[in-house]
Amino acid sequence: MAKNITPRAENYNQWYLDVISAGQLADHAPVKGCMVIRPTGFAIWEQMQSRLDRMFKETGHVNAYFPVLIPESFLKREAEHVEGFAPELAVVTHAGGKLLEEPLVVRPTSETVIGHMYAQWIQSYRDLPVLINQWCNVMRWELRTRLFLRTSEFLWQEGHTAHETAEEAEEETLRMLEIYRRFHEELLAMPVLMGRKTDTEKFPGALRTYCVEAMMQDRKALQAGTSHNLGQNFARAFDIQFLDRGNERRHVHTTSWGSSTRMIGGLLMTHSDDDGLVLPPRIAPVQVVIVPLYKNDAERAAVMPFAERVRAELGGVLDPLHIRLDTRDDLRAAERFFYWVQQGVPLRIEVGPRDVGQGAVMLVRRDTREKQSAPLAGLGQTTLALLERIQTDLFERARAFRQANTHRIDDYGEFRELMEGPGGFAEAHWNGSAQVEARIKAETKATIRVIPLDEDPEPGRCMVTGEPSPRRVVFAVAY
Amino acid sequence: MAKNITPRAENYNQWYLDVISAGQLADHAPVKGCMVIRPTGFAIWEQMQSRLDRMFKETGHVNAYFPVLIPESFLKREAEHVEGFAPELAVVTHAGGKLLEEPLVVRPTSETVIGHMYAQWIQSYRDLPVLINQWCNVMRWELRTRLFLRTSEFLWQEGHTAHETAEEAEEETLRMLEIYRRFHEELLAMPVLMGRKTDTEKFPGALRTYCVEAMMQDRKALQAGTSHNLGQNFARAFDIQFLDRGNERRHVHTTSWGSSTRMIGGLLMTHSDDDGLVLPPRIAPVQVVIVPLYKNDAERAAVMPFAERVRAELGGVLDPLHIRLDTRDDLRAAERFFYWVQQGVPLRIEVGPRDVGQGAVMLVRRDTREKQSAPLAGLGQTTLALLERIQTDLFERARAFRQANTHRIDDYGEFRELMEGPGGFAEAHWNGSAQVEARIKAETKATIRVIPLDEDPEPGRCMVTGEPSPRRVVFAVAY
Repeated sequence: MAKNITPRAENYNQWYLDVISAGQLADHAPVKGCMVIRPTGFAIWEQMQSRLDRMFKETGHVNAYFPVLIPESFLKREAEHVEGFAPELAVVTHAGGKLLEEPLVVRPTSETVIGHMYAQWIQSYRDLPVLINQWCNVMRWELRTRLFLRTSEFLWQEGHTAHETAEEAEEETLRMLEIYRRFHEELLAMPVLMGRKTDTEKFPGALRTYCVEAMMQDRKALQAGTSHNLGQNFARAFDIQFLDRGNERRHVHTTSWGSSTRMIGGLLMTHSDDDGLVLPPRIAPVQVVIVPLYKNDAERAAVMPFAERVRAELGGVLDPLHIRLDTRDDLRAAERFFYWVQQGVPLRIEVGPRDVGQGAVMLVRRDTREKQSAPLAGLGQTTLALLERIQTDLFERARAFRQANTHRIDDYGEFRELMEGPGGFAEAHWNGSAQVEARIKAETKATIRVIPLDEDPEPGRCMVTGEPSPRRVVFAVAY
Repeated sequence: MAKNITPRAENYNQWYLDVISAGQLADHAPVKGCMVIRPTGFAIWEQMQSRLDRMFKETGHVNAYFPVLIPESFLKREAEHVEGFAPELAVVTHAGGKLLEEPLVVRPTSETVIGHMYAQWIQSYRDLPVLINQWCNVMRWELRTRLFLRTSEFLWQEGHTAHETAEEAEEETLRMLEIYRRFHEELLAMPVLMGRKTDTEKFPGALRTYCVEAMMQDRKALQAGTSHNLGQNFARAFDIQFLDRGNERRHVHTTSWGSSTRMIGGLLMTHSDDDGLVLPPRIAPVQVVIVPLYKNDAERAAVMPFAERVRAELGGVLDPLHIRLDTRDDLRAAERFFYWVQQGVPLRIEVGPRDVGQGAVMLVRRDTREKQSAPLAGLGQTTLALLERIQTDLFERARAFRQANTHRIDDYGEFRELMEGPGGFAEAHWNGSAQVEARIKAETKATIRVIPLDEDPEPGRCMVTGEPSPRRVVFAVAY
């Protein structure tokens, strides 16, 4: 039952796939490049969805649903947008047994069709702001795929807002970036850098793209959520106009922001180890598993009622849906332990005959494997505190790792050595030109992950050209 | 702001569209036959999803996600299945700039691709039962569409389970039918008939199809949820085999069951009136709206803090996300009232200067328009009780309507008069032949909606042929 997992040090890519397979998170679909998200993996997505959705609603956003098929001509209305997405489109040419008059694309993102609808819904400043989010599937045809990180179909949320002024649109863009930061750091225990993308890396059609960026255990970067200020680009392309407070017709200012099932891959690569998945308690679908241990019917008769009391005690502080009692009789204890280890459950509670006698249980942390005995009395509070401790420890460990692998570099030779060698984040100066950015990418595979948002940047000189640079930017090889 | 709504008596179809438009529930998408579900409509779907999802999880089901694109050849493996769905398929022929080797269909339903995965996941009886549900979008190309009721794309849930024995599969099929009944009756306040479909009406590829069926206000029937016992048909087509307890290889027995955004249309047509949408409290995204009333700043200064106290009092018994306080200053009271009437909010609470003086508020029911004064003290409990009362009244009213429009008919002439005239449900005898069923449909448009499940049926003679009939079945003209 327990699957062998390739150690990270031996083959990081294989380790990633083995953790997914052992945890039964996802599988390859019969259509090349697509994935099946299995119940264990999907339960993580459901947790992510419900937490993020609550954060969106608390900031005044509402959900809606727009169609999956978009007329091909819509994409062509915004020049950068179609250039960016055309190579990745899946196209419906036939439907209902007939050739369609106009081909339809399966949405790669929905700015265009939503822009088309907003043009009809928005008449006056009284209709603004429009703050809509959508949870859905999108399709971007990929040749080289990787479960969760890059698949032809994935699930995501895409927020699309419209505002009266440029200032309001910029505020919204940064508000959602901050929500992504909080979500990653507070719930996924993933430390992230916030910043702006260069023009090369920005969303096709955006004025400015911001993102949160995390470091994986192989020191590569993962872009985890993006927030775009679209300016009036899509408003012009789809003619979204409103009568302003001075009774003049103007184009609205729009934003869009998204995060996807890719985050599951990032979560996995941040915390998991050579035994498999490790999940932070606040996002884990199963937070605690109770494993009763007995060798015969007499022991069973003593242990099972006690295990039920443990479950009842925990049910007072945790949602019962997040607690499991493993009653499988046909598996040895070691097999059951390993099953839950590979499912990433943060805390295992073992209940054996001796524990029953002492009115206590054994708590085993998934992350550190530390064991401690705890009395049944007050077990709810003990468990809550321990789960919070695990959450904090995971975050701190990931932050320390990122810190240890982030380097201030002023010399391009040193930079190349880092990127060709151990890898990591390099804080370096750059002259701001796309040409130099492209040269660095060609020579080292590293790209500019973020232009940080600090208000008091340190000026310097480009590590490649020696030209002036207003601030350090963060380079890394990325997924 | 308030939209005119065509009265039902004048034009029922236009009334339906007007209620959707006035409530801002949905809109036509640029792609013919597809719809946009606007925030008010989508909030109803979110309520339905969260309530149904909880019911599925409480009965041991888990969610997963399977790909939206399915190889065309998969559908052909089950002869009835492809015959049923082929005319409605949307087909992707190009992707990533190239012609695909094999066309892919946008899923019309997922039995085939899920069967393909189950064949890999299921090895032994220990892997059974598999109880998976999926929430997603599906596509069935339709020529004659109607918002919510029949659209080319719609949202739904589809459950797919696999079992060791035929008995377990039948139990599961009926368990989920009962969940649909409870969901409709207890949450949507929609009385439904449960029963089996005839072979003509069953799901393509199923052994037996069961459904819940409701009566709309125009006396037509609406199929609201279906549950299929698929027998071993898909297990054979996709070779889903397992080693049974006797160590022999056998095909599993599968079921599937689904309900969709169509239920929003059914909900609308069950309860709404000539003023617009009426929502049952248990499913309403906004359960209560508080409308403060004032004519000048002095009145405003007295009324607003009191309205906030009302909100705080209600927040103790209802989820704050389900309460609205309407603070719009730029609209007259009548406009605000009408806005919330058209949004279907079950209860309006008016707070004016006189109410403040008396420490009371005015409660106005959406369904009956009845008004009653209630003191602020204990308002939470008063409101809860009134919402429950509205829920019960809506259900009872719908049940009385169905009862008044259900007729026991033994004469085919009388039957035709009913179907050509007022319409309604006819409980009639039928000889069991598909030919007679087809003739009745051709002559009256009525179809057999359900073969009821009563254990003690009344035998009789077919109203068309006079041949023996074991039980009455329910006929109606359907959506």
